[in-house]
Parts: sequence; structure tokens; C-alpha cells
Amino acid sequence: MNRSNPTVSGRSKGADFLQLDPAEAAPGGLADWLTDRLRTAISTGHLPVGTRLPATRTLAADLGISRGVVTESYQRLTEDGQIAGRGRAGTVVVAAPIGTAPAPMEPAVRRSTVLRQPGLDAFDTLRGVGSRIDLTPGVPDLAAFPRAAWIRAERAVLGNLEAAEFGYGDPAGTPALRRAVAAWLAQYRGIAADPDDLIVVAGVAQAIGLVAQLLAERGVHEVAVEDPGSLGSRQHLRSWGMRTPPVPVDDRGLAVDVLRKSGASVVMVTPAHHFPTGVVLDGERRRDLIQWAADGGLILEDDYDAEHRYDRPPVPALRAMLPDQVIYAGSVSKLLAPALRIGWMLAPPQYKDELIGRKRLADLGNAALPQLTLAHLMESGELERHLRFLRRRHRARRDAMVAAVQKYLPTATIHGAAAGLHLTITFDAAFDDVFDDVELAAAALDRGVKTHPLSWHCQLPHAPGLVLGYAARTPTEITDAIRTIGEAAAAPTAHRSTGPGSPNTPARTRRRPPRA
Amino acid sequence: MNRSNPTVSGRSKGADFLQLDPAEAAPGGLADWLTDRLRTAISTGHLPVGTRLPATRTLAADLGISRGVVTESYQRLTEDGQIAGRGRAGTVVVAAPIGTAPAPMEPAVRRSTVLRQPGLDAFDTLRGVGSRIDLTPGVPDLAAFPRAAWIRAERAVLGNLEAAEFGYGDPAGTPALRRAVAAWLAQYRGIAADPDDLIVVAGVAQAIGLVAQLLAERGVHEVAVEDPGSLGSRQHLRSWGMRTPPVPVDDRGLAVDVLRKSGASVVMVTPAHHFPTGVVLDGERRRDLIQWAADGGLILEDDYDAEHRYDRPPVPALRAMLPDQVIYAGSVSKLLAPALRIGWMLAPPQYKDELIGRKRLADLGNAALPQLTLAHLMESGELERHLRFLRRRHRARRDAMVAAVQKYLPTATIHGAAAGLHLTITFDAAFDDVFDDVELAAAALDRGVKTHPLSWHCQLPHAPGLVLGYAARTPTEITDAIRTIGEAAAAPTAHRSTGPGSPNTPARTRRRPPRA
Repeated sequence: MNRSNPTVSGRSKGADFLQLDPAEAAPGGLADWLTDRLRTAISTGHLPVGTRLPATRTLAADLGISRGVVTESYQRLTEDGQIAGRGRAGTVVVAAPIGTAPAPMEPAVRRSTVLRQPGLDAFDTLRGVGSRIDLTPGVPDLAAFPRAAWIRAERAVLGNLEAAEFGYGDPAGTPALRRAVAAWLAQYRGIAADPDDLIVVAGVAQAIGLVAQLLAERGVHEVAVEDPGSLGSRQHLRSWGMRTPPVPVDDRGLAVDVLRKSGASVVMVTPAHHFPTGVVLDGERRRDLIQWAADGGLILEDDYDAEHRYDRPPVPALRAMLPDQVIYAGSVSKLLAPALRIGWMLAPPQYKDELIGRKRLADLGNAALPQLTLAHLMESGELERHLRFLRRRHRARRDAMVAAVQKYLPTATIHGAAAGLHLTITFDAAFDDVFDDVELAAAALDRGVKTHPLSWHCQLPHAPGLVLGYAARTPTEITDAIRTIGEAAAAPTAHRSTGPGSPNTPARTRRRPPRA
Repeated sequence: MNRSNPTVSGRSKGADFLQLDPAEAAPGGLADWLTDRLRTAISTGHLPVGTRLPATRTLAADLGISRGVVTESYQRLTEDGQIAGRGRAGTVVVAAPIGTAPAPMEPAVRRSTVLRQPGLDAFDTLRGVGSRIDLTPGVPDLAAFPRAAWIRAERAVLGNLEAAEFGYGDPAGTPALRRAVAAWLAQYRGIAADPDDLIVVAGVAQAIGLVAQLLAERGVHEVAVEDPGSLGSRQHLRSWGMRTPPVPVDDRGLAVDVLRKSGASVVMVTPAHHFPTGVVLDGERRRDLIQWAADGGLILEDDYDAEHRYDRPPVPALRAMLPDQVIYAGSVSKLLAPALRIGWMLAPPQYKDELIGRKRLADLGNAALPQLTLAHLMESGELERHLRFLRRRHRARRDAMVAAVQKYLPTATIHGAAAGLHLTITFDAAFDDVFDDVELAAAALDRGVKTHPLSWHCQLPHAPGLVLGYAARTPTEITDAIRTIGEAAAAPTAHRSTGPGSPNTPARTRRRPPRA
């Protein structure tokens, strides 16, 4: 057999197929060993998507091990969504695990620097850092992207597209997608939106930029932000020249009284599911915030993962209650994939035309084909089916992470597990008084597990913690990763401070009880 | 037969099929009549793409006319690319003509206003104005978009995509597309580019914005532009706060001596094929401009349609000669479709990182799937095949327009027919001394033909003229449209001035000989 082609046929000999040697297995660990070898081969591309695995009987015979071991191993990889039975076609590789491709490990100092001093390229840099298991928050299960449905929808779109639609289009977006999104928002977010009021944008990041330009034009150079709150959103606002005074978030949500005292005229919030703590803005705070806006404040509502809800009632969008004072922004980044770069914003009438003008200036409007394909997926019900599927899968992964945290990080407090794609853990005074979550994140990364230190998302002093994404990881990976973080936290010096933090991360614990 | 469903079977009766009545035809004009009725039915959607037309024998019998008439009519529509023979499947509608969908005709005054005072939404507004034949420049033959190849390529891409690639990506673009574009530029534009120096952008419009932000950051608020020169580019530069002092373009290209005297430190140029006159920057001017840049000037090179060349030798990009002082920008808008919103820029090393940072800030980078699909089309040779096909088709359409202008607009001078997707015509003193091309464009639009008055693209006094796109129109449509413009020009008052033009269009002819 040609060793340069690891794709196997049923007749392949064990010695050839991945050069597997059962002797490598620990005593009684044959299934663990085989599962691990197969997962690695898939992640490194030695078993590319589409590859047919040997029949269990064949592989067992080749390796001289019991068929039950091979069956168990295939079963685990199937549960992880990496392989799938295809009837007579056999068992096929359907998806590679994410972030497990072997990348050159950065020196610990570099990783620590990225984590301690997150610059504008922090997310790109961290993405480039090699890791065994990536728990960075903010993405759904990307392996579940409905590839076949997407291609079907796009073929249908192309079959009916008028030639003129390949030309320059409406900078506010294609009518088809604006109709579909309006229907989606009405169904899932309780927002009655006129499609003409929707502006299709390249994700919430672009929406933030367009709004910042609009504010600057009006002499507004300050947008209050939640604290804790998204580092990415804060960086975008600042890059567009906005100051970002922090407003504390407690277990009832944004401290509206502090917002009012701050004198800020604009605030960016995530009321349905606060990032990163998952807190839901409670009824009284909601009324306070609405009143603040009714008194002349402007709310930028980032509804970033509202559709992902497991065991709590839905929370209507603020926009539904006060259309004239709320700029609403959402996207498919958490529903389908960030790589699609499709989002939308609903602007109050007085800002709509200017925002469309700024979108035109930015890029003449989003690309048409992906817009029309997404509209087709929304109108055909495919996106809703996908969301239901994601909910089941994400819930199982959420449960796996909660269980693992309780087992391996018993002193941690879990926040925001009722919804979303990630959860946040904080530590109380069990660790010594200069416990530093940046050091813990760096120690975890040294062990191959990538996370966000809670410090990234805080401007004010806060409890030390980590933001842990579970949606894109399999239960096996999640358990493995949390165990690793537990080891890092337990290591005597891993998370000790190495002296005062840099000015970029003032946030450190001084025996202060966790607020978020 | 159900009249609400015009889709026909071979058994349809003439009286039902489109309610055709040969009695409508002018004497001896049966083929013209039938062709026109079919084209209208296709454009209005009564015969959607995919509809099978009746067999020639059947339709001839239904209508009681000779089969030769039906055959000739089908033949014309086939040449126009609107229908195609599919063997046993019969003759099928494959593409609808562009811009011929009946839209509510705007009042002449509104159309005239759009043309005379082109605001930031001028292109969107004009696109929304109904017309019979759209000759606005700037798009290739959109009906020729390689739909099947695109879907094939995207399916191949999705079949091999790692899940992580659905996540957030490199704001500078996917490595695959940057490699493919570098190879394309080397092959077609004589530019040896390192893929790492390429930044994928949402078209040249976005590139202009990113560069303008970079210049403003450095205290530069002025970008000299060609005159005549693209209205769209000028509007973008101005919207980003740049002044746009005009530098004349004569039949040898940009007047570099005027540029030098202007004191401007940055200039935006289209040296390979000047927009809109098609002039090629000649050798001496090229050396002058390079020298100006070598002395510290910065050139923004818009290589907007360099690949479309018919009967003249290729012209290398300026970027190839002076990488350190030229920011090069190109896109697929003229190769495939503007709706893809994919372009690229090559920045001098000293600006690269900042431009990538500004692209990240704008939208976190282009969407991944279209990038990877385009890369596949480039690497598989599909795009090159498409370009060769477009060249043949565009050349025939160019020839049809030149012939029609010579026949119906004998006093017009033709510019820039050797390359590109459009040509420009100017008129000498044959018309009276206040001849106004905005009035002529409005008169043509009154007759259903959409064009750009040359005034749109001029800041300085210039010969009156029109910019006429031919790439997206069929020879039949082009001949029809030019005949119509001829009628508009010949009408006694159509193009007379209605008094002094608005400040927005100072450009009028005062017995001044055409410069461009």
C-alpha cells in the first residue's frame, strides 16, 4: 500500500493504516488510545473529511484487538461529531476538531504578554497561538455548519437570480434578506420591524463603527459600556475615537443609577444575556434603563446570542419597547458562523438615512449572494431547524462543562450557564490575595488550553475568573480542558502574580468579593 | 390552459402563449415583433429563467406564421444570450436582460435632477430609475456570470473546509485567496506580489476609504484626482474628508506637470485605462509620474478594468515599477460581478500594518466562503476561461456600439474603445454653444436609455459627452439604444440648456474644443 496515501480501504493492514500499534496503549486503555490516535489523525489532515474508515471488524482484525474496542472508539468519535455512519458507504470522517491542529507552541512569555496586554490584534494573535483545546468564547459549534443546506440554498438562489442582481445593489441590503430578518426578529425577538428599517451590515463590529461615526459627527465622543463587558466592543468603540466609561454590572444587570450619574448620553448593552457574565437585566433595572433612554439617552443594544437559551424564559429585546431610542444590532455569527460576516441593525428613524449612507461609504453594501442564500435558509425554515439542533448539542456541552467545573474547579463560581455559548467562572478568596486570572489563563495555555481571562473584559476591579466557551467543543474535549485548567490552578505558582500588572490590566483582586 | 401560468408546453396554443397576436406586427416586421415580445416577456418575468419555449414548428403553427420567422427570432435571442438550445429539452430561457424590467417612469424633472446634481446616492438613485436599456458604465456582462462554476467551486471548498475556518479569520483575507490573487497579478498585471502584502477588501470603494483614513491620520487631507475622472471615487474621497483638486487628463494621460505644480502629495490615477476616456498614460508621462512619486509623492493606482483589452498591447501597472510609493487596488467587480464585493490592495510596507488594522476595524475582514470560492476559480483556471469568454463577447458588443455611434451619432468623437467595458463619446461645436450633456442624458433617459453624462465625471470645463457602457448589453440593445440617443440629440430642444447649470455641474462647453 502506498504509505503517502493514508486513505484506507477495507483491505488495509493495521500496520499500514496510520501505522497503528496497539502496543502503544496503556494497560486497559486500548479504546482511549485508539480514539486519541484517530482524533489526532483527523485533526492533522491525515484522515481528511470524507475519508472512509476501515470497518470495525477489519480494523479489529488488523490490530489483533477485540471488535468492541474499535466500536467503542468509533462511537465516541461519532458522539463528538467527527465521524458518522453512512450505511453501506461505511463510517466516514465528517468534521475535523477545531484548534487542535498542531501549531508551533509560542514561548510562555509571548502567550503571557498577549493575555496581559491585549492590543487591537489580541483576538487575531491569540487565535494564532497553538493550543490543544480552544475554549475561547464567541462561536457556536462550527463543525455543525449546515454545509449541504447552504449549497442547496445558494444553488436555488443562483437558479433564479436576475443578471442585474450581480451588479451594484442597495447599500442597505437585499430586500429578500431584509424581509427574512424582519420575520426572524418578529418570531424570535418580539421585534416588529419594517424591512425598510433594517440595514444589513458585516456583523455587529461594523454596526459599532457606523454608529460611532454617526455619534462623532454629532459631537458625541463617549459611549458608556458594561463592566465587565466585551473587550472587542470596547476596542472598536475606542478605535473610532469614543471614550468608554465603565458602568458596573451586578447580579441584576447594569447599574442604571451609575449610568445616570456618569452623564453619558449613549450606552452599549447586552441586556438579554450579558457578556460575559450571562446576567439578565431584571425588570426594575429594565424599567430604569428605558426611563433613562426616554429622558434622552441612546441605547446601542447588542443582541449577540439571544437565540441560544436552555433553561430560562426568553427575554424580549429592549428595542421592542423603545424603538425611537434604541439602535438594535444582531448577526448570524452566533447562529451560523462569524466567517459569513452578516449582521443587521435597526436604527431609529432619525438615524436611518445617515447610517445607510455610512454603510454605502464603508463598502457599498454587503455581498449579495450570501445575503440571498441566508434569506433562503431563513424562509425555508432551515435556519430554525439548525438552531433547534444547535440548542440540543450546546446544552449537552454546557452540561459537560458545568459538571467538569464542579469536579475539577470546586472553588469556582459558575455564571451565565442558563443561556449562550460560554460560561464565566470566578474564584473567591480561596486563592491568595494577588491571585491573577491572566496568570491562570497563561498557565492553562502553557498546558494547551486556550481561554479568556476575565480581566480582558473588565476595566474595573473584579473577581479573578475565566470566560470559557463550550459551544464549539465536544464533551470529551471540554472535560479534558477543564481538568487541565484545574491542574493549572492547583499548581503552586502558576497563577501567582509576577508583580504589578501592566497598566492595560488594572483589574486584579484585592480580597474584593466577586461582583459579576 | 391556465392563463395565470404563462410557462408553456409544446402543446400551448398561440392565443394562450403570451397572448401573441401576429396582427400587432408591422408589415414585414414579424421577426422584429416576435423577438421584441419574447424579450419583454423574459424581462418582465412572464417567461422566467428555465422556462421552455415552444418548438419553432409548434409556435409557427399556433401563430399561423412561417417557421423561418420563429427560427430567426429564437436565433436573435440566442445570440443575445437570453435563450439557449438544450437539445431534447428544447429551447430554454437562460438569462433575463438587465435593467429592462418595467419600473415606474420617474417624472422627467426628477431624472434631470439626478443627472444634474449627483449626490452621494446618485448611483443608487439612477439605478432605481426605470429604463428600457441601461448603458450606465462599470459592469461586465453580468448575464455571463459563471453560476455553475461558482457553485461547483463553492461545493468543493465546503467539502474540504475545516470547521475553524467558519470562525473569525485573518482581517487581511484568507491565505488561499491572497495566494491566488498574487499569482493572478503576476500573470496578468506584471506585478510580483508577496501574498503577505495583499489585503483583501470589499472592493476598491473600501480600499479608498481605508487609504483616506490612513492619510487623515497623517494630516493629509487632499488627494489629487484625474479630470475627467470617476465621480464615484471623488465622492468617496470627499466623504472621507479629502479635498480632490482636479489634474487634467489629455490624450497622453495625466498632466504630471500640473500635478507637480498643484503641490498635492497624493494622487489617485487609472493609468492603464483612464476612466472615463480610456487614455493610456504614455511613456514619457509615466516616467514623469514615477519621478514625482520617487520625489515623495504617493500614488493610489486604481487598476479597475485592466484585464479587458481588445486591440492594444497590455500596459503594466505602475505598482510593478515603484512598489514603495504606489498603493495598488483592484477587484473582481469588472471580472465577475460587483455584487461579490471582493477586491484587493497592495500597500507599501510602511502602510501595510495600519491598513490591515483599519480593515479589521471596518468589518473584521471579508467573508471567508466567497474568498475561498474565488480562490478556487482562480487556481482552477475557471476565471481565466471566463475572462477569455468575456473578451470575445465584449469585443463584439464594443464593435456594435462603435458602428452604431458612427451611424446614428456621426458628429460624435469616440474615446477609449480599445479596452474596457465602456466608451466615451464627446461632441464638438456641431451643437450650439450651450450644448449640455446633462440635458442630452436626460432626453435619452426620457426615451428609456440610461447613460452617464460626461459632466458627472468632470470638475473642469470639458467637451460635452456621454459615457456609454456596452459590456452588459446585447448588440441588439446597443444598436437600439444608440439610435435612441441619436434621436434625442437630433430633437430640436432636447439638449438645449435650461439656463445656468447648478454649481454641482459647472462643466459646460463654451466653444471649447474637446480635451479628453
